[in-house]
Amino acid sequence: MRVPTLLGRLLGTAPGRAGGDTRKAEALCRALLSERGEAAGTALAREALDAYEALDDAGRARLFDALAQEFAPDPERVARAAEAYRRDPSASNQVRLQAVVEPPRQELFRRLNMAPGGTAGLVALRKQLLRELPQHPEWAALDADLLHLLRSWFNRGFLVLERIDWRTSAIVLEKLIAYEAVHAIKGWPDLHRRLEADRRCFAFFHPALPDEPLIFIEVALTRTMAGRVQPLLDVAAPLGDPRQARCAMFYSITNCQDGLRGISFGNFLIKQVAEELRDELPQLRTFATLSPIPGFRKWLRGRDVAGLERLERPGWQQAKGSDSLEGLLMPLCASYLLGGKRGTEPLDPVARFHLGNGARLERIDWLADTSPSGIESSAGMMANYVYRLAEVEHNHELFVNEHRVIASRQVERLAREPWPERGTPNVARA
Amino acid sequence: MRVPTLLGRLLGTAPGRAGGDTRKAEALCRALLSERGEAAGTALAREALDAYEALDDAGRARLFDALAQEFAPDPERVARAAEAYRRDPSASNQVRLQAVVEPPRQELFRRLNMAPGGTAGLVALRKQLLRELPQHPEWAALDADLLHLLRSWFNRGFLVLERIDWRTSAIVLEKLIAYEAVHAIKGWPDLHRRLEADRRCFAFFHPALPDEPLIFIEVALTRTMAGRVQPLLDVAAPLGDPRQARCAMFYSITNCQDGLRGISFGNFLIKQVAEELRDELPQLRTFATLSPIPGFRKWLRGRDVAGLERLERPGWQQAKGSDSLEGLLMPLCASYLLGGKRGTEPLDPVARFHLGNGARLERIDWLADTSPSGIESSAGMMANYVYRLAEVEHNHELFVNEHRVIASRQVERLAREPWPERGTPNVARA
Amino acid sequence: MRVPTLLGRLLGTAPGRAGGDTRKAEALCRALLSERGEAAGTALAREALDAYEALDDAGRARLFDALAQEFAPDPERVARAAEAYRRDPSASNQVRLQAVVEPPRQELFRRLNMAPGGTAGLVALRKQLLRELPQHPEWAALDADLLHLLRSWFNRGFLVLERIDWRTSAIVLEKLIAYEAVHAIKGWPDLHRRLEADRRCFAFFHPALPDEPLIFIEVALTRTMAGRVQPLLDVAAPLGDPRQARCAMFYSITNCQDGLRGISFGNFLIKQVAEELRDELPQLRTFATLSPIPGFRKWLRGRDVAGLERLERPGWQQAKGSDSLEGLLMPLCASYLLGGKRGTEPLDPVARFHLGNGARLERIDWLADTSPSGIESSAGMMANYVYRLAEVEHNHELFVNEHRVIASRQVERLAREPWPERGTPNVARA
Amino acid sequence: MRVPTLLGRLLGTAPGRAGGDTRKAEALCRALLSERGEAAGTALAREALDAYEALDDAGRARLFDALAQEFAPDPERVARAAEAYRRDPSASNQVRLQAVVEPPRQELFRRLNMAPGGTAGLVALRKQLLRELPQHPEWAALDADLLHLLRSWFNRGFLVLERIDWRTSAIVLEKLIAYEAVHAIKGWPDLHRRLEADRRCFAFFHPALPDEPLIFIEVALTRTMAGRVQPLLDVAAPLGDPRQARCAMFYSITNCQDGLRGISFGNFLIKQVAEELRDELPQLRTFATLSPIPGFRKWLRGRDVAGLERLERPGWQQAKGSDSLEGLLMPLCASYLLGGKRGTEPLDPVARFHLGNGARLERIDWLADTSPSGIESSAGMMANYVYRLAEVEHNHELFVNEHRVIASRQVERLAREPWPERGTPNVARA
Repeated sequence: MRVPTLLGRLLGTAPGRAGGDTRKAEALCRALLSERGEAAGTALAREALDAYEALDDAGRARLFDALAQEFAPDPERVARAAEAYRRDPSASNQVRLQAVVEPPRQELFRRLNMAPGGTAGLVALRKQLLRELPQHPEWAALDADLLHLLRSWFNRGFLVLERIDWRTSAIVLEKLIAYEAVHAIKGWPDLHRRLEADRRCFAFFHPALPDEPLIFIEVALTRTMAGRVQPLLDVAAPLGDPRQARCAMFYSITNCQDGLRGISFGNFLIKQVAEELRDELPQLRTFATLSPIPGFRKWLRGRDVAGLERLERPGWQQAKGSDSLEGLLMPLCASYLLGGKRGTEPLDPVARFHLGNGARLERIDWLADTSPSGIESSAGMMANYVYRLAEVEHNHELFVNEHRVIASRQVERLAREPWPERGTPNVARA
Repeated sequence: MRVPTLLGRLLGTAPGRAGGDTRKAEALCRALLSERGEAAGTALAREALDAYEALDDAGRARLFDALAQEFAPDPERVARAAEAYRRDPSASNQVRLQAVVEPPRQELFRRLNMAPGGTAGLVALRKQLLRELPQHPEWAALDADLLHLLRSWFNRGFLVLERIDWRTSAIVLEKLIAYEAVHAIKGWPDLHRRLEADRRCFAFFHPALPDEPLIFIEVALTRTMAGRVQPLLDVAAPLGDPRQARCAMFYSITNCQDGLRGISFGNFLIKQVAEELRDELPQLRTFATLSPIPGFRKWLRGRDVAGLERLERPGWQQAKGSDSLEGLLMPLCASYLLGGKRGTEPLDPVARFHLGNGARLERIDWLADTSPSGIESSAGMMANYVYRLAEVEHNHELFVNEHRVIASRQVERLAREPWPERGTPNVARA
Repeated sequence: MRVPTLLGRLLGTAPGRAGGDTRKAEALCRALLSERGEAAGTALAREALDAYEALDDAGRARLFDALAQEFAPDPERVARAAEAYRRDPSASNQVRLQAVVEPPRQELFRRLNMAPGGTAGLVALRKQLLRELPQHPEWAALDADLLHLLRSWFNRGFLVLERIDWRTSAIVLEKLIAYEAVHAIKGWPDLHRRLEADRRCFAFFHPALPDEPLIFIEVALTRTMAGRVQPLLDVAAPLGDPRQARCAMFYSITNCQDGLRGISFGNFLIKQVAEELRDELPQLRTFATLSPIPGFRKWLRGRDVAGLERLERPGWQQAKGSDSLEGLLMPLCASYLLGGKRGTEPLDPVARFHLGNGARLERIDWLADTSPSGIESSAGMMANYVYRLAEVEHNHELFVNEHRVIASRQVERLAREPWPERGTPNVARA
Repeated sequence: MRVPTLLGRLLGTAPGRAGGDTRKAEALCRALLSERGEAAGTALAREALDAYEALDDAGRARLFDALAQEFAPDPERVARAAEAYRRDPSASNQVRLQAVVEPPRQELFRRLNMAPGGTAGLVALRKQLLRELPQHPEWAALDADLLHLLRSWFNRGFLVLERIDWRTSAIVLEKLIAYEAVHAIKGWPDLHRRLEADRRCFAFFHPALPDEPLIFIEVALTRTMAGRVQPLLDVAAPLGDPRQARCAMFYSITNCQDGLRGISFGNFLIKQVAEELRDELPQLRTFATLSPIPGFRKWLRGRDVAGLERLERPGWQQAKGSDSLEGLLMPLCASYLLGGKRGTEPLDPVARFHLGNGARLERIDWLADTSPSGIESSAGMMANYVYRLAEVEHNHELFVNEHRVIASRQVERLAREPWPERGTPNVARA
């Protein structure tokens, strides 16, 4: 189902290369939206995507400009339909209003999606769009349209949870190595250790993106709640017996697709994985994370606390007397997590995510991540957030409606400890 | 993840049964749309669907009323957002406009879809809605919202084409028997014959509806273009050799899901099946349908033509002299197919479908379907529409833009033959 | 990899049809055994099987004659190798002995097995051989060779247990309908009922025979031990809840492949299915059969017992006073099952099978199978054999070494009841 | 299905560890062969294998001794059966003879095979046996029995050809890295390159050994017949277009299972892979190997040829004037391959394999493998053997019956070139 004649007619004369490619892509997009597009079906959609993919960054930017300007709803028609609906909010006026308000590019995206590989193509297109969006605020509505569609298409009801292990295809496994964003996977032996019998790994997939994990989570099965991450990452760690485990430690969770930014998968993933594990290993008692506290050191730099200058000395964590730093930093970290705010929400992005999911901040761990980046970002501290499935909804509600941080007494007590030379701290100070 | 406390609070006191069930379902829908709904995730969605499914028809009607009235966009806010967009069609105004115009029930449907079995639940809900829609025009916008989402979710890019044969699961095969709408399948031996080596059957599936064909098509591989359907339906028909076949006869196509009415799958299915067959059997030369002409007799009743009274005698087709009827009816049928119009489109729904897909009307077949319904609806005549993949786009364009019916010379000539006692007919007369 | 030249040379001149086909098949068999056979590989094997399959019964008989006579071990060489081994039972003498004793046709069968579809071909060949074996005792060693190989190839370690349900391919399901040998399956609705949620069906498959069940078993999940088979076979029987079931009733077991006669699958199948069911439904307490007693009426005809003449009246089981027959026949049946012998083994073949597997005879059921064949063969009685996995080995040992029939006290007591006019019967009398 | 009581009885008193373990394993083997073994089924078989696997090397050797001595056929019974057969080679005498000659351990192995993982257990057992066989010639018949069974079970008809690529499970891929015996795979990136679009890799699997390749072959798709192996092994080699390829170069073939030594898979694998490739890529013209010549340097050391001393200088291949060595060594190598014999077969094992398969020696390649081992074993030379499917049978026959080496004229001419200072060499001289 080729459309050479169509293109010839649409493009008129043979165009120069630089502008011409964008014109070709745009013409194909218009053709796809036309009557002809309906009969041409998937071949024309593929051709349009190919034309887009053949563009360089500049050509793509020009196409985004066109999509942003010319495939938008008509303000006058919108105004008339809105007025009609205001006067008579009937079903037919509402249907007409929605038809007028929906930008034609939404239909364009839906038709592009029909192409073989179309969904992957649109996810890649949005990745490109997002990369340049900071320089092009005028593309915001274009991005909103794409996000709207992708969020609908990547609805939880369409995702498939799959266990990842050493039987998984190499084509998927190599992507885990490439994507892992929290604790880098140092090659295949490292990955293999993370998929052994005392570990679990799960990912969400979408049927239209085969071999492409959307998000994955790594879990260690342990006897007690882990307080240090390096032993979990040690390729030579002795193999544990999963039947002896009482804790499932979620020690890494990674979103894989830049083009799906803004669509939240993590909340669903953690909860479904907890349910899966509970079914497989009924003896598990605790589902907890071992999480970074990425904003702590930055927040700390804004505090005026005696003794913090010792953190500037390289290797302080191995030096004698680092124990005294523990007494200083643990209360500060608790204050940060309980009191540090961005608006009404926790300042720390990881805390924001887990507390927003309804987890509770259970414990802060001293010298839990002694990697350079762990020392650098959080003075080596990590946090355990515990997921109790029976409580997450209630916690979430308190979190959203009352802006409360659900934490253990131990952490709350820590946060009330006095800071050096400043009397009793409290959350408000943070 | 149960939400008993939530429901208790939402529902207040224990309600009476008849109204109460609907109130429970509505309350669950509201809870699902709330903040809590985000954390509750799939369990609450499932609960809401269960509550809906537990309702009787009256209860469902009350829920549809609520969804139609209370989950609609706010006319005043719409008017303000439209006015703002009219004054300044900026990206942010556009985003705000779209947010205000989108009815909250769209988000509700998206969240219901998260439930296990959610997609199937929504398709069933729409089936119910459509059944009662004629009595409830006020639900039109509600249905439009649901259709809008389902059309997006059942985008061609998400459909999976599968060959159906005797290796297919019985759970799918029994649905073919149940759904077949053109030439009823009379039990398993009949089905088996239709899946033998000289036949092909394909269906579209959606990953979220396992074991549920959306649409399926039955194909007979023949030496020449078939002009009678009974031999194709004969369970005892001798087995042909597919390697000797030159024609793929599409003799039945059935949409399976009432809840997906208005979403067109047939066009894509026919074309992809033609491509699949061409790949598998490169010696195939013709891809054609053997199609009913369902509106012919009805149209005929409005014509004033001598000799038609013979059609009223039962068994006319076996009577002596039925040949002379052929000379009478064939030109009439050609006139009907070429000239019978509903607005600018063909009057015959099957013609409308195939011609709209870009097929061409190749031949009219005399005594091609002698079943009671074939005699009743089309005086036993059928039509062959031919799909030439290289021409369908062009044909479709002529069809849409110029309202032209693409037909063979043979059929065009037939349509020009004089009707008895009336001189030369022409298309305009039809 | 065609071998036309080879054949031409082997066959010499063009042979007459009747004899020639067998000669061709035999020549291909010899070629396959030769050096050339090694390089020709699977194509020559396929050609030889094709040649065999093209033969009519007479041609096949001639080929069997040839295989029986000419592909046998050489008696003189055997004698020499045996004598050498007798004088010096060294490893090398043993190896040589075995090589000389193995008939060349075993290697021929192994090479035929290399053909695509080779295993199925050999199973079909043995089916044919067995059919004619009664008329050809001289083929006994040929059959023994084939059986030896097939038994080794269909070793339990190579079988795959698969659950059969309504998701199974129609190509397998239709074979269940065709093969069922105990309680005929009357079409697809009957089969469907036997695969509902309160039923289970399992089969053994061999990887080289895809879509071909070797043996299958049908199980009903019930509250109590079933004592009548008709309710289990009723297509309209109400659906039970498998979670409420306490008994797994094995009510039908069928060997599917005539060509594998003499290879026992049933023992393994029953025990593995019991384990599977125990894992899936831990609340199951009893694994029992509801079995025919096929030899009872025949055995009864040899007894001299008053009152049996009533059994000759058609419809006796519905006649008034049939209860008194119960008092007469139940002890007789118990005597038959406990005391009826063929050598040291039970006379009843079904009893022989289950008792040999280590099951115990738990109960005899009155009017348990009122179908014509049930009345005809066992006066409507059936037997429950119970499988207790912890006891089957011990029972089997008692059965084999001490020829003991393991039965419940209830059945033993029945067997001791006096027969009319004859005083107290005992097992020895049977 | 535990058998504790059995074991207690069989073993009598609690045995000392060292001897006792072997006694336990042997007792379990005897139990498995007994009547009880039939009812115990797969659990007892697993227990016996477990007992064997728990033994150390000394314990296993004692068990092998027992199996070799006590599970052998009885010489006197063999002699009587052989004599009976000699006097009357009837079917029944033949059947009896075979029964008496078959060592009971064959039945033991068949019963061990019933255990879950039984086949893998037996393959591992034979691997152990083969390792120690050189020190224990008295186990030769034991090994012959095991080989006989395994050869029958791993018959070509039961093997499954699978394509290996980057979608294959890591559990299989890591075994390729571990097993590759010709050109070592240096980690995952190296493996990945060998599975790219311009490469093919196929393996035989057996259904009872999941995830365990039996043999695999690596193929490079090239424009012309490759004469150097290093470019094929280069991880950074540019990606070729498979549609442009005319040659399939088989550059590595590895048997994976030591326990299956003596069972030939390579011949079947090469030919079926050639057929697969021909189907997938019809434009392929040449199927050829690029093979080592492992025995050449060793053979050369026995020749008295001037100039060979230069080969002793490390790095000679990069030194100036190495070209003159080409003129010296190429004819010698041709002489080696065409004339070097072990009995009637080629002296070079790789030549023996490919020529025995019916391939033809097409070309000898100078400096084709410059790795240390390539220089060491064959002075850097390699050979191309070409597989023409239409000729392999004929070639094989000439090879077996007339001991002819099928070679190209070019190689034959090389072999006739004079060696320095010695006049015209000929094949007889080699």
